[in-house]
Amino acid sequence: MTELPKTLEEAVTFDDRGLVLAVAQQHDSGEVLMVAWMNREALAETLAERQVCYWSRSRGKLWRKGETSGQTQKLIDLRVDCDGDSLLLLVDQKGVACHTGRRSCFYLAATEEGGLREVMPVMTDPGELYGD
Amino acid sequence: MTELPKTLEEAVTFDDRGLVLAVAQQHDSGEVLMVAWMNREALAETLAERQVCYWSRSRGKLWRKGETSGQTQKLIDLRVDCDGDSLLLLVDQKGVACHTGRRSCFYLAATEEGGLREVMPVMTDPGELYGD
Repeated sequence: MTELPKTLEEAVTFDDRGLVLAVAQQHDSGEVLMVAWMNREALAETLAERQVCYWSRSRGKLWRKGETSGQTQKLIDLRVDCDGDSLLLLVDQKGVACHTGRRSCFYLAATEEGGLREVMPVMTDPGELYGD
Repeated sequence: MTELPKTLEEAVTFDDRGLVLAVAQQHDSGEVLMVAWMNREALAETLAERQVCYWSRSRGKLWRKGETSGQTQKLIDLRVDCDGDSLLLLVDQKGVACHTGRRSCFYLAATEEGGLREVMPVMTDPGELYGD
């Protein structure tokens, strides 16, 4: 019987970029909303504020989810996986998680023929979310 | 209005290691079971066989989920996210997804004090799964 880690600090493994993967799931409906990355600082802020903060690899800075769009994620619970390199964030998503204005980023489904079909509608105009 | 990709081939972006992230979710209950990686070959096999096959980074080879343990994942549906670097696999998980014998790999929850508590029981003895 392997002993379980006692603290989050002990359990989480950051990769060679200093990042850990985070999957956001709506806590009550079970919808998988998005996947992003966190560094040590983003994780600490998320736990302290109970509002999800990621690390933006493209912008190279903290990404306080919803900071611009208002579509915040309140942290309800945080899980870490057996090898410590992935987190599951149980959140309460305000509005839409996807920058396209859809509830989840996973709005394209593969068809048997290798095609794609859209399985979620645009709920909010992205222009409204980002003011362009 | 951005045009959506028409095919899975067009939508999926493999990283510089040739990998794309895959989140496995039980299709009916919504449980997030595990996170792993796929290369082009693993994805093609998963779609062809409708049984989930990952790429094992540690072993450097295809990882036909359940090959040893019998705890297979039947593919029900496959989603790709807005930037094409993550997949959501809606699966029917036979038995347990985690090598520890728990239903999901996300069995440790963070406490407010930075500790961890176990939120899922061991359902199957790992010795039974892997014959050691």
